[in-house]
Amino acid sequence: MLSFENDYSAGAHPKLLQALCEENLVSQPGYGEDEYCRRAAEKIRAACAAPEAELRFLVGGTQTNQIVIASLLRSYEGVLSAVTGHVNGHEAGAIEYSGHKVLTLPQHEGKIDAKELRDWLETYFSDEAYEHMVRPGMVYLSYPTEYGSLYRRAELEAIAAVCREYHLPLFIDGARLGYGLMSREAELSLPELAALCDVFTIGGTKVGALCGEAVVFPKGNAPEHFTSIIKQHGGLLAKGRLLGLQFDALFTDGLYFAAAKNAIDKAERLKAIFQARGIPFFLASPTNQQFVVMPDELLPRLSEKLRFSVWEKADEGHTVLRFCTSWATTDADLDALEEILGAL
Amino acid sequence: MLSFENDYSAGAHPKLLQALCEENLVSQPGYGEDEYCRRAAEKIRAACAAPEAELRFLVGGTQTNQIVIASLLRSYEGVLSAVTGHVNGHEAGAIEYSGHKVLTLPQHEGKIDAKELRDWLETYFSDEAYEHMVRPGMVYLSYPTEYGSLYRRAELEAIAAVCREYHLPLFIDGARLGYGLMSREAELSLPELAALCDVFTIGGTKVGALCGEAVVFPKGNAPEHFTSIIKQHGGLLAKGRLLGLQFDALFTDGLYFAAAKNAIDKAERLKAIFQARGIPFFLASPTNQQFVVMPDELLPRLSEKLRFSVWEKADEGHTVLRFCTSWATTDADLDALEEILGAL
Amino acid sequence: MLSFENDYSAGAHPKLLQALCEENLVSQPGYGEDEYCRRAAEKIRAACAAPEAELRFLVGGTQTNQIVIASLLRSYEGVLSAVTGHVNGHEAGAIEYSGHKVLTLPQHEGKIDAKELRDWLETYFSDEAYEHMVRPGMVYLSYPTEYGSLYRRAELEAIAAVCREYHLPLFIDGARLGYGLMSREAELSLPELAALCDVFTIGGTKVGALCGEAVVFPKGNAPEHFTSIIKQHGGLLAKGRLLGLQFDALFTDGLYFAAAKNAIDKAERLKAIFQARGIPFFLASPTNQQFVVMPDELLPRLSEKLRFSVWEKADEGHTVLRFCTSWATTDADLDALEEILGAL
Amino acid sequence: MLSFENDYSAGAHPKLLQALCEENLVSQPGYGEDEYCRRAAEKIRAACAAPEAELRFLVGGTQTNQIVIASLLRSYEGVLSAVTGHVNGHEAGAIEYSGHKVLTLPQHEGKIDAKELRDWLETYFSDEAYEHMVRPGMVYLSYPTEYGSLYRRAELEAIAAVCREYHLPLFIDGARLGYGLMSREAELSLPELAALCDVFTIGGTKVGALCGEAVVFPKGNAPEHFTSIIKQHGGLLAKGRLLGLQFDALFTDGLYFAAAKNAIDKAERLKAIFQARGIPFFLASPTNQQFVVMPDELLPRLSEKLRFSVWEKADEGHTVLRFCTSWATTDADLDALEEILGAL
Repeated sequence: MLSFENDYSAGAHPKLLQALCEENLVSQPGYGEDEYCRRAAEKIRAACAAPEAELRFLVGGTQTNQIVIASLLRSYEGVLSAVTGHVNGHEAGAIEYSGHKVLTLPQHEGKIDAKELRDWLETYFSDEAYEHMVRPGMVYLSYPTEYGSLYRRAELEAIAAVCREYHLPLFIDGARLGYGLMSREAELSLPELAALCDVFTIGGTKVGALCGEAVVFPKGNAPEHFTSIIKQHGGLLAKGRLLGLQFDALFTDGLYFAAAKNAIDKAERLKAIFQARGIPFFLASPTNQQFVVMPDELLPRLSEKLRFSVWEKADEGHTVLRFCTSWATTDADLDALEEILGAL
Repeated sequence: MLSFENDYSAGAHPKLLQALCEENLVSQPGYGEDEYCRRAAEKIRAACAAPEAELRFLVGGTQTNQIVIASLLRSYEGVLSAVTGHVNGHEAGAIEYSGHKVLTLPQHEGKIDAKELRDWLETYFSDEAYEHMVRPGMVYLSYPTEYGSLYRRAELEAIAAVCREYHLPLFIDGARLGYGLMSREAELSLPELAALCDVFTIGGTKVGALCGEAVVFPKGNAPEHFTSIIKQHGGLLAKGRLLGLQFDALFTDGLYFAAAKNAIDKAERLKAIFQARGIPFFLASPTNQQFVVMPDELLPRLSEKLRFSVWEKADEGHTVLRFCTSWATTDADLDALEEILGAL
Repeated sequence: MLSFENDYSAGAHPKLLQALCEENLVSQPGYGEDEYCRRAAEKIRAACAAPEAELRFLVGGTQTNQIVIASLLRSYEGVLSAVTGHVNGHEAGAIEYSGHKVLTLPQHEGKIDAKELRDWLETYFSDEAYEHMVRPGMVYLSYPTEYGSLYRRAELEAIAAVCREYHLPLFIDGARLGYGLMSREAELSLPELAALCDVFTIGGTKVGALCGEAVVFPKGNAPEHFTSIIKQHGGLLAKGRLLGLQFDALFTDGLYFAAAKNAIDKAERLKAIFQARGIPFFLASPTNQQFVVMPDELLPRLSEKLRFSVWEKADEGHTVLRFCTSWATTDADLDALEEILGAL
Repeated sequence: MLSFENDYSAGAHPKLLQALCEENLVSQPGYGEDEYCRRAAEKIRAACAAPEAELRFLVGGTQTNQIVIASLLRSYEGVLSAVTGHVNGHEAGAIEYSGHKVLTLPQHEGKIDAKELRDWLETYFSDEAYEHMVRPGMVYLSYPTEYGSLYRRAELEAIAAVCREYHLPLFIDGARLGYGLMSREAELSLPELAALCDVFTIGGTKVGALCGEAVVFPKGNAPEHFTSIIKQHGGLLAKGRLLGLQFDALFTDGLYFAAAKNAIDKAERLKAIFQARGIPFFLASPTNQQFVVMPDELLPRLSEKLRFSVWEKADEGHTVLRFCTSWATTDADLDALEEILGAL
């Protein structure tokens, strides 16, 4: 069935499968020590203009968030996040399972605000009762956010400045990073983003890979014994080649960016299709996730024809739906959508 | 370089890659809800003669052990294991990270003994000081073991009987299960093994897959909300299709067993090659892991020619080396080994 | 210095010290198996009209909350609490340290609302995405709350009804229970409160003891192997007699209630003293914690004369201060307060 | 009933109760910020000849071990201990609950051996497979041990030297420290012991207090935000005065040492009583715990007359019993023991 349900319903970009097939019988060391991981890391360092960056390839997003956060926090510290941050609401308590509290900040279309961050820190860092509270140990944000929105350059620079002032590492969750970088409203390049934070991820799962998230410590600042930490969390893949080969292919000849650009182009067309029918948007997203407000009575017929995500109630009688495009979305998919919406 | 270092240095059996390629653009739900996982589970149920079995597909071995054990134990319980059990020594403390103690039993070529298990339980279950000790909540064993050895039918039945008597779930770690089932000394079929335990795994990573471990609860006894538990541990793969497609292929037309049989056949030839040169074995392994005792002065030249694992010191002047075959080992590999050993 | 800073700045009610002295050399078993714990439990069962109640005596409040919550939740569950609940903000992340998320509900003078609780549960229990979220496993509330407020009978019954409907245990944190029961606005007796919940605590630390919280499972519903859970958390006191003797004394001849009543009487006089001077209250508290709004310029002089707690900013120029009475507050203390305020 | 069951069956030394009574109504800040804790710390620094020492007072032994160990280890590290160490076997998994593995070394009458420690470290620190194993992060030992034995000066110096060489903090669990220091075979003074390790505890619970363990970081090397760590573990006592007053009294006029000396004197007489009757010792203990080997047929009659601890089976027909003296043991107790044994 036609699906705009998410950006991970297809397999992988064919070039990644091709790489897996071509190198299949080459014997390689395990656990990320293979030649492909080395090559992929080299190419990502170049793409980030971060020659000292340390990289690790992990399998999935929640796993990555859990491991990165646990590796940076001391036992008594928590992570600051928007209340809508993925780590706060949609990871089944993976952060808390590793012993840390998610300290929440207000969200504005999924984004945190530098001034609110500073106010929070001023309030609590000056509090002598602080030893009875959870100390903040880092700041988490997603780019794009869970609502498809993007931080403007000035917004992110302001947040990064607060983080530096308070000596809090800034972690950018890039599960959908490609879609953020290729958005028509993007103000930040990959090197600029790498320069602004202490650790970030380059999502593969949602941008063309079967699985895989690259963790980048742009200043060569990976935690000591990071491999043991990954292993301890059950995140160390025996056949690291599966990740290395895919990221090597994604960062060869700009494939990661081209794959992401396709999703953006298709999202722009998708927006136009909804706009043409007067279907309002819940918010203005410049990336591959689009949120529309639909009358409830249309949902049964719509869901007979295609798949989408039900996000939340808009009001009595209306629901927010999420439609995603991806590296795999085709114009034929959008033609079909247009036809279905027209027939409603 | 020629490698007998482990059983996960090649990619995947070509039929698995073929399946991944053929179904690549078919849109599927995420998180294991895809059609391939459903089909794979169906075929494994049939292969286990366990029509009520519940299955989940996870990515890696340590992850699987951590999640299965944490899901079965209550917070104050520990898991009984051979001191050489993978969960005790080679998972970077993943079990303890999830809050549980590994309670160790003596090992005999990697195996635990039913009588020693019973003695342990009799000693501690009758102890009134018990509330200050870690209560045993389950028994873990690997089949084959970390030393390549296999439990005989009577041994495993005796252990299972003790477990039932003490109401302790029995968990069989089958990271290399195929090699155990296809060993020429195997006394247990897959249905028989499934009938003897409460949960077991069918390792894909080491038996022909890029990644993947099938977790089987043969009596339909998966823990409640097991998906949340997996997610909380960072183990829920977005594109479950990657696992479903591979296990579907492995359990189509007996591929899993055929792939494993190749490793056994090659291991038998490997044994003969070493025996012909008078190189002694550390122990008699009937599976794909072979442990030989080699004079230390030969190691430098040997390691120039091929890769193997250094296991442990045998004595002054000798070292135990591990040589693994796998589904991917060829006769050409063994010809090359024969030549290298001959030239030493 | 004169102190209204908290309700734990003095030692213990003299009758408790007397009991400790009188029984000092009597040899008793350790770890709560002593005769005094047995007697104290017996008396508390009677006071609660809960003959089947199971009791344990723990040392401190955060410890008690952590242990009770961890013992009732399954690994993937969280605890619902007011955002101002002690477990959410003032226990240094003790709940998260034990692996569980605190799921927050809005607060109304420190209280949660049955309707908001039901709405929350209806929203999330019907959500199919739920497996990626933290499941609620119990409800926590404090009586009195962190703001000194009390649930009315109807409010608490409504909350308890929702809990029963959703099969969620209700835990009442009674760190200051005595002050709630003896409030002039109290609508619930100890037996009524015991009947409404699944577990509650009777705070000793803040109501006359040197330390100690009684955990009461009114329906005989203590978790299995609760002693091991306590021990595992480091909460099992070797000389349980210290807790048993104190609670035995507190529940002999109504001492617990009399001690609490003193705090209430003194709080009423304290309120009158502030009211007479036109100093407004932040909220109307019927228990031993009183929150007044004070001009910032008075704070330096005030803090030279007495101790109080600075709670939060009220607005530009005003601060909320907390004044506590306790079992130990005397009329002389209040005379001194009156004089100091008069002199400002 | 006459009891030699343990060293915590009586209350507290009367001077401690006297201090609690005398200061009872003095208002003090909570959470260890009181004047008594300050004074006690000052006196202990002097007694340790460690003017820079940082001190904290905790309630119980398991709690203290859990908090000290968790505060010193990084998440992926474990603690090295004798297999008989209290943290390994008798704390209900409190160390594992905090996420860390107890790495076990052989025991010799409860003691670890410097050479075996070094061998263990040489084997594993040189192992490249190490990232899959738990890294040792500190060394734990108890003084006296769980078998009442004492490290000789040279033994402890050798262990400390290995620890320094491998940059592993050395933690000495002094739950019964007084009895070790006052043993007739003691080779180490309190300042010498403090100089040899990185952190140690001075047990109050078993040496005259109602509760309380002093944690001493002799080089002023307490972990950052140690109070938050204590709070997070539920170990921060609101009325820290209870601990401060007791340790202040214990370290006034040498009371701690005098109280311990009584136990040693009584243990020497107890040894003589058993020796005179030809009852053999399981091992030669120079402290307050004595282990005798008793014919099983005598146990029923013995346990009618007095209390002792059943330790373990010695052989068919014999059991190891533990008899403890304490600061509270009197000559009348020993007279009674003598009579009971004579009558057997």
